[in-house]
Amino acid sequence: MDQIYPSVLLEEAVQAFSGLPGIGRKTALRLVLHLLRQNKEDVEHFGNTLIRLKNEIAYCKTCHNISDTEECLICSNPRRDTSIICVVENVREVMAIEQTRQYNGLYHVLGGLISPMDGIGPSDLEINSLVERLAQNRVEEVILALSATAEGDATSFYIFRKISTYPLKITVIARGISVGDELEYADEITLGRSILNRIPFKTS
Amino acid sequence: MDQIYPSVLLEEAVQAFSGLPGIGRKTALRLVLHLLRQNKEDVEHFGNTLIRLKNEIAYCKTCHNISDTEECLICSNPRRDTSIICVVENVREVMAIEQTRQYNGLYHVLGGLISPMDGIGPSDLEINSLVERLAQNRVEEVILALSATAEGDATSFYIFRKISTYPLKITVIARGISVGDELEYADEITLGRSILNRIPFKTS
Repeated sequence: MDQIYPSVLLEEAVQAFSGLPGIGRKTALRLVLHLLRQNKEDVEHFGNTLIRLKNEIAYCKTCHNISDTEECLICSNPRRDTSIICVVENVREVMAIEQTRQYNGLYHVLGGLISPMDGIGPSDLEINSLVERLAQNRVEEVILALSATAEGDATSFYIFRKISTYPLKITVIARGISVGDELEYADEITLGRSILNRIPFKTS
Repeated sequence: MDQIYPSVLLEEAVQAFSGLPGIGRKTALRLVLHLLRQNKEDVEHFGNTLIRLKNEIAYCKTCHNISDTEECLICSNPRRDTSIICVVENVREVMAIEQTRQYNGLYHVLGGLISPMDGIGPSDLEINSLVERLAQNRVEEVILALSATAEGDATSFYIFRKISTYPLKITVIARGISVGDELEYADEITLGRSILNRIPFKTS
């Protein structure tokens, strides 16, 4: 049963929020009522930030990560290893990998994954620009760091076929038991892969 | 560890969203990235709706519910029973009670609950306007329909003391086992109250 809103403007605001992923109409109403309790200046700043976000956000011309400058801080950093490119879905994955402090190469941000269900094909992603980058630069390794989902696997496979003619190493990030997980609760596909892809024991 | 954002504008947008209740920085980033994938017009409409929401929203001069008109659709409806006023926290509770179709009286929206922890006192709520309403209109019953929390109970008690001198019936909504709940999982306070406040058995 649809809720009846006492105000058209309220209804519009609830509709705007409930269009966001993971936010239903009940949560949307809670957020709108929260905003109504805030200062006028804060809410205006929120609204204007969203408008500026879409109009002014820029992307690095090399790796296509979100950036305030024409070339992002990672691509323009002379201390990064330019011979390795890590292919990721989005800025979120760049941030997650940067936080591990285990990687010093460059990135290539696809802007999504191939997903026929959502109407996203290879041409909607930054795949051709990756091929161009490999043609124009001396790259020794491409790491495919995409999600372990059907879409991630399909995208990895597509990219692999596109770039396998270049003389470089193509790797994927390891899949296995998460650190801290108990073995008996791991799903069988993950457990099976982690046995197949076992590595020499090292004391670190 | 704080995340390092590749763009000041991105960071600002994430901050705006993560100021909303129940939304952390990870979810905020997901929402911002979702908006970046939408049409420019849709995002601008979202931003402008928020700005208009705060600047243009109006409240009913009688019951203080959110309303597009000076007097809301419930207060101005001649078929509603004006002798009963149901006191609620917010527009959400008005909508929830309206959806039950079990109530035909009027409302009085407090705009919150007394909560010293959050710095909300009686004067921040529409309590004086409720007293004025009772003084100026022929009201036979006031229903206190506030949350079954410490704040709700404190607010009910405060209002009860303020209005107990008026010649009217003051009631609270029933508390007990939720319809569909199994008895063995009910908490003991609820179960105890539901036994104390038992009512005659009726076949409906």
